[in-house]
Amino acid sequence: MSSQDTNKRKLMMDVRRVEALSDGIFAIVMTLFVLSIDLPAPPQDNADEVLRESLVNVWPQMKSYLLSFFLLGVFWVIHHRQLHFIKRVDSGYLWINIIYLMLVALVPFSTGVLGDYSNIQDAALVFEFNLLCVGLFQLAAWYYATRDFRLVDPEEFDPERMRIGLKLNLIIPAISLVAMGLSFINPYRSTEIYILIPLIIWLLSRRGVSNNRLAGSA
Amino acid sequence: MSSQDTNKRKLMMDVRRVEALSDGIFAIVMTLFVLSIDLPAPPQDNADEVLRESLVNVWPQMKSYLLSFFLLGVFWVIHHRQLHFIKRVDSGYLWINIIYLMLVALVPFSTGVLGDYSNIQDAALVFEFNLLCVGLFQLAAWYYATRDFRLVDPEEFDPERMRIGLKLNLIIPAISLVAMGLSFINPYRSTEIYILIPLIIWLLSRRGVSNNRLAGSA
Amino acid sequence: MSSQDTNKRKLMMDVRRVEALSDGIFAIVMTLFVLSIDLPAPPQDNADEVLRESLVNVWPQMKSYLLSFFLLGVFWVIHHRQLHFIKRVDSGYLWINIIYLMLVALVPFSTGVLGDYSNIQDAALVFEFNLLCVGLFQLAAWYYATRDFRLVDPEEFDPERMRIGLKLNLIIPAISLVAMGLSFINPYRSTEIYILIPLIIWLLSRRGVSNNRLAGSA
Amino acid sequence: MSSQDTNKRKLMMDVRRVEALSDGIFAIVMTLFVLSIDLPAPPQDNADEVLRESLVNVWPQMKSYLLSFFLLGVFWVIHHRQLHFIKRVDSGYLWINIIYLMLVALVPFSTGVLGDYSNIQDAALVFEFNLLCVGLFQLAAWYYATRDFRLVDPEEFDPERMRIGLKLNLIIPAISLVAMGLSFINPYRSTEIYILIPLIIWLLSRRGVSNNRLAGSA
Repeated sequence: MSSQDTNKRKLMMDVRRVEALSDGIFAIVMTLFVLSIDLPAPPQDNADEVLRESLVNVWPQMKSYLLSFFLLGVFWVIHHRQLHFIKRVDSGYLWINIIYLMLVALVPFSTGVLGDYSNIQDAALVFEFNLLCVGLFQLAAWYYATRDFRLVDPEEFDPERMRIGLKLNLIIPAISLVAMGLSFINPYRSTEIYILIPLIIWLLSRRGVSNNRLAGSA
Repeated sequence: MSSQDTNKRKLMMDVRRVEALSDGIFAIVMTLFVLSIDLPAPPQDNADEVLRESLVNVWPQMKSYLLSFFLLGVFWVIHHRQLHFIKRVDSGYLWINIIYLMLVALVPFSTGVLGDYSNIQDAALVFEFNLLCVGLFQLAAWYYATRDFRLVDPEEFDPERMRIGLKLNLIIPAISLVAMGLSFINPYRSTEIYILIPLIIWLLSRRGVSNNRLAGSA
Repeated sequence: MSSQDTNKRKLMMDVRRVEALSDGIFAIVMTLFVLSIDLPAPPQDNADEVLRESLVNVWPQMKSYLLSFFLLGVFWVIHHRQLHFIKRVDSGYLWINIIYLMLVALVPFSTGVLGDYSNIQDAALVFEFNLLCVGLFQLAAWYYATRDFRLVDPEEFDPERMRIGLKLNLIIPAISLVAMGLSFINPYRSTEIYILIPLIIWLLSRRGVSNNRLAGSA
Repeated sequence: MSSQDTNKRKLMMDVRRVEALSDGIFAIVMTLFVLSIDLPAPPQDNADEVLRESLVNVWPQMKSYLLSFFLLGVFWVIHHRQLHFIKRVDSGYLWINIIYLMLVALVPFSTGVLGDYSNIQDAALVFEFNLLCVGLFQLAAWYYATRDFRLVDPEEFDPERMRIGLKLNLIIPAISLVAMGLSFINPYRSTEIYILIPLIIWLLSRRGVSNNRLAGSA
């Protein structure tokens, strides 16, 4: 038995801690941006008018918060599904995952830029480029883990599933590229195409069901 | 065996990660609002008087913090009890839970609005509407999971329990509607009726015990 | 078999989630205060002098941060030890734990007050009263859980251990009362007596060892 | 059987909670610094130029964020590997770990100092000294846990591994000392030598493989 095999078996149980760190970072990133949405301090008089106006003014920030929570939810669901099949981790996977989490942790920053400067193309590009990178590293993690059954169990892992996982992981990078193109036309609207994601996943999953292939991964 | 059955069994163990993300988000949401309660920087002289006055002035914020911590505690206990019976998760449940967590993550925002503008009706309405939505999604999650034993185990799950769970989940939406009504009369006091919750749960649980029904869920 | 017995056994496995929420809140509370220690933005010139002076000026804040991290560490170790013996949770314990966590979550606030107004008695009293309350609720949780073996396993739980646990849980409330007394003489120094805690625990544990009693709890 | 042996076996399962607290603190520390990277509020006109300029201006902060995320990633991977071998915890280890986490929690502060005052030697020294201390406590934890097989299992723990672990844990303290020396020549560049870490780990692991020794720990 090669030392690499031993190594792999030894690290098998540590998937749990990778999940713990990842869940912690997702929880924080999903939650904290909302703390930066501040209303002005209440004035001495006509506080009710000021409040009503402030609630209207935070809408662009609230909109970018809801969008980024939704996208982080998509990433988390895909991450959740990846680790469902991964039985062990090695140094390579740990580091791909750490860089992935670093990019995830930048999402509140780029969401904030988008919320404050929602009409400016550069803000949309920062946000969309961040998501493109997150998506590409999630794709890389899947490819690294499943290629030659490196971190999955050959007995319960259908090679077809790798191909389906790759497709699933290509959705966000592909949409991000389209959004970056659209930002040259209308920066404010370009980020809205991300809401097509559930439709795309549903279409993929319908085709998958008819092929009796996607069961369990949609 | 249908592919849906396989899917369900495969995802059975992943309840743990849904709990991890949810616990992380609850921990952050319950903790962080307190960070936004700031005292003014200490002045050069008569710092003791300034401090005493500041401690009095933060009371409306502190009150809304304690109220929201208590309500998040109620939600967490109910969430905890729901997942106790749920044996597997599917995409539908994951997404109901993610939207639910998104609404939970907005609680610090609406608590902050309430703390800053405690006398204004709109602030009370924002807070109470947020809680109404959280409660409705928690109800939806329970209905989705237990309807036709979708995510629970028929052998250990008494259908009567579903009905009790629905009642339990209706408490916060119902109180929120009453509070929204009361906010037209007295916004500042309208949020205080939430402290009736323990009394209502206790009354429900007493009736339940006399029926030999609620055991295990109160 | 009474319905209460069934209830207890059913909730047995949920200790894990109480730990997860508690660990999350401890992690946040221990970490985040440091984020509020801010240096002024760098000026255009003589930035090195400004930095050196700023680093000296943050010392009172840093000191109160280190103190509160240490005290939260003590609470966490005791909490950790309590849950080691607790085999199931019920509604009563859940709520004592939630109020306990609410008081823990106030520690960054009272630490901030102490850091900003370190020479004022009221600030010391706020901090010490907060710790007194945390300690009393930790004591209450232990008493509730072990009284009549409510949440512990009679077979592996020595009644003597309950008494030792009570003593351990009395340390912080007792020191807090002494500190509140000392704050009338010297507010700035009154908080420093908390650093006697390791000495007290060590003394208790030495006496315990000679009695062959404290083994496993020190 | 000595009472110490009993104690050790009893605390065996609690490694899990030490991991939970540590993962929580790492998740927060890795994520939150990015929240402090703020762009100025958008001005009334020429917002696009202001945004572009602001994005350039945040580069020193972003650079120190990326560096500290990477270094925290290194610490987390080493911590992850340590606890992989540790089968039980005792009071001594708990407290070394809590002080270690206290120093980890200071990293966002020293990263912020470095980001704001990137050209000043004192800022580089604060950052590098913080990392030196974190590294030394991680080394102490490993030495404490493995010395005389105190917290590891003699049957599955090769003494050679202790020596390799010590070497691994010396990397960051050693680099920090070099960086502190370099800061006298060029503070801004001195922190960049940390990016040699992967190269050093790779070199160590290559030598280890040729000795058939490092398998499983690289």
